[in-house]
Amino acid sequence: MKVYKFPSESEWPSLLARPVMDSSALEAKVMAVLKDVQANGDQALRNYTRQFDGVDMAQFTVGQEEITNAATMVSSELKNAIQQAAANIRQFHAAQQQVPEFIETMPGIRCWRKSVGIEKVGLYIPGGTAPLFSTLLMLGIPATLAGCREIILCSPPDKNGQLHPAILYAASVVGVTRIFKLGGVQAIGAMAYGTETVPKVYKIFGPGNQYVTCAKQLIQQSGIAIDMPAGPSEVAVFADETASPSFVAADLLSQAEHGSDSQVLLVTTSESLIPLVEQQIEQQLESLPRAEIARKALVNSTMVVVRDTQTAMDLLNRYAAEHLILACRDAEGLARMVINAGSVFIGHFSPESVGDYASGTNHTLPTNGYATAYSGVSLDSFVKKITFQQLTENGLKNISQTVIEMATAEGLDAHANAVRYRITN
Amino acid sequence: MKVYKFPSESEWPSLLARPVMDSSALEAKVMAVLKDVQANGDQALRNYTRQFDGVDMAQFTVGQEEITNAATMVSSELKNAIQQAAANIRQFHAAQQQVPEFIETMPGIRCWRKSVGIEKVGLYIPGGTAPLFSTLLMLGIPATLAGCREIILCSPPDKNGQLHPAILYAASVVGVTRIFKLGGVQAIGAMAYGTETVPKVYKIFGPGNQYVTCAKQLIQQSGIAIDMPAGPSEVAVFADETASPSFVAADLLSQAEHGSDSQVLLVTTSESLIPLVEQQIEQQLESLPRAEIARKALVNSTMVVVRDTQTAMDLLNRYAAEHLILACRDAEGLARMVINAGSVFIGHFSPESVGDYASGTNHTLPTNGYATAYSGVSLDSFVKKITFQQLTENGLKNISQTVIEMATAEGLDAHANAVRYRITN
Repeated sequence: MKVYKFPSESEWPSLLARPVMDSSALEAKVMAVLKDVQANGDQALRNYTRQFDGVDMAQFTVGQEEITNAATMVSSELKNAIQQAAANIRQFHAAQQQVPEFIETMPGIRCWRKSVGIEKVGLYIPGGTAPLFSTLLMLGIPATLAGCREIILCSPPDKNGQLHPAILYAASVVGVTRIFKLGGVQAIGAMAYGTETVPKVYKIFGPGNQYVTCAKQLIQQSGIAIDMPAGPSEVAVFADETASPSFVAADLLSQAEHGSDSQVLLVTTSESLIPLVEQQIEQQLESLPRAEIARKALVNSTMVVVRDTQTAMDLLNRYAAEHLILACRDAEGLARMVINAGSVFIGHFSPESVGDYASGTNHTLPTNGYATAYSGVSLDSFVKKITFQQLTENGLKNISQTVIEMATAEGLDAHANAVRYRITN
Repeated sequence: MKVYKFPSESEWPSLLARPVMDSSALEAKVMAVLKDVQANGDQALRNYTRQFDGVDMAQFTVGQEEITNAATMVSSELKNAIQQAAANIRQFHAAQQQVPEFIETMPGIRCWRKSVGIEKVGLYIPGGTAPLFSTLLMLGIPATLAGCREIILCSPPDKNGQLHPAILYAASVVGVTRIFKLGGVQAIGAMAYGTETVPKVYKIFGPGNQYVTCAKQLIQQSGIAIDMPAGPSEVAVFADETASPSFVAADLLSQAEHGSDSQVLLVTTSESLIPLVEQQIEQQLESLPRAEIARKALVNSTMVVVRDTQTAMDLLNRYAAEHLILACRDAEGLARMVINAGSVFIGHFSPESVGDYASGTNHTLPTNGYATAYSGVSLDSFVKKITFQQLTENGLKNISQTVIEMATAEGLDAHANAVRYRITN
């Protein structure tokens, strides 16, 4: 890891810089797949699944029997863990439900907002080395709480045309309505445009590789909503002299093992903490199965020593981390100073991994500095908030002069007329 | 207007189809302007303002004196109207403020969400024939309520290098922090990348022509958030035999006068209403200043007669209108059946124009069917919701087995370690 000691504010932009991602080189290729799926439906899906997943799929739909069988293949320990995590996630997200509040802005003018679940949503869970059933909990639970009627899951089949049992088990726990063994750009295209077997959805959620990310960007341009822009996962840790070098090292490594492009940032007011953390990292790496990936990520990672806590928080708000761990004295007080972050972990006993799996908060969070403007996934992500207004005849009279005056000043006479015809009749 | 009587469900997609917008032809041109602004800052802004707005600007910043002078040029009637509208909008949006709710998902595990204003936002208000000060109220008021620290306004100068006084007056009412006389793609580029005089913002709001819309799409790809995708404005009216033909005609015309691309849809269970509305439209058009624009919009507009109310609501939910007026018996009951719409106007005395200006609801709403997945602008649009979690040592112990089990099953051992190191120390 690179170490910066007491950098001046002018140096912050370069030391906080993220890797520049440019998917424009992929765009033509990804667009061609999307267009093929749009034009040729299931046949295109079969072709790309053969080409990219190396398997011939007679059908993509997962049947009830497969789901039932999968449940028998998951250990009871993992089932219990998934159930516990699901319960916490459900509890936290259920508290985000809002009932309409009726506001009488003037006598006879009543306005309110109502949250209505997006009718059809698509969840994408990537394949690869590990089955990301935790992401399925994070997306599927708020989708069902929101009242989405159709919740589609797409995840790529393995060489035998199967999905991992833990994925299927998690899907049944959260209440996904239909599951398709389908991955990559072709899965995004299928959900965006619909095919003979895959229904078109209105919003697509979930992580993926650079091709999937590019596909999500492209279908967003054509009006399909997506959860948020994507970037490599990241953690920032603020540690003072009360922090445990071993806890800090473990947190940095838990981010670094995600991928060689993971972003890891340690900010500290304690210069002497740096070598202790470095030593702990080396030690913990020795027994880590994904040590090689973690080492690559650490090469591009940064440790910064700053003069005081205020400087640390200024720097961290500038960085806008996906995950921010506050391993310090008065962590709760510092948490109130956070302006930009996806999710914040307060104190020495709140590692990021509890939020990744089971504390109840969502782990689908804004990366790459997007926390300056974006929120993580929540119940909000699965609803539209529709506004309503209901005026009595008197209510309309009360506001008529205001509307007529403004409409006329904007040169929109028919807008004024819509009020005039009603109050003069 | 085209009239369809009792169409079968298979005919719905074609009769509800929106015009296809394809901005890809503009992309290269718009991208060139954005890149020039990014590279050359204020100098590029001056060049494009000369080229597109026909005026040489020594500086873009609006001074306090200009704002003070503008207030003297707005009639007291219009000022009162703006104040009244602002009060209603403020009241409705203030009720959307949320205080953190602390959830103890398990003993010793406390999670919450906190809304934090996006630090820097940019509002774009187009120029043209009419000064859209109402849109400035709709964007500026929630921005200030959200606690955004920097609220930038860009709007194109007229031939004399001025902004309309009503725009400047509305800006001072809502509390915009900085105003720039700057329009078009160059304004979007300036707010997205920052220049010597215009600060970079994290999210850009506001309507615009096809070039501005294309610019917003492009900067969204590079990570700047935008309010929502744009399309022509639209209204759908459901009217039964209790509806007044004159009110319905006035509502359709108030939408049609927006632009020749406006979308107007009347759905009715009363076949005899159609000729009465058509007759009223002709009559009202006679005295309408923007009759020519409205006539063009009406050519592409549609009236549909359906068998019953349920069919009407199915059709309207399929259409997902930006504005939906329910001019019928039991309008409140029907409002509860709405799944897809931006804003709903209930009953015979709730014309769209009250929501456009002054009822208190927001008028920046999802068009083009985006109401299936998007909400209109609200206080939510100006905040990030950051999640927090705080675990005690016992809280971590309570959840440790769940996290370790799940992390291990996902092949992420360092995630498990971040818990293990803490509970074995």
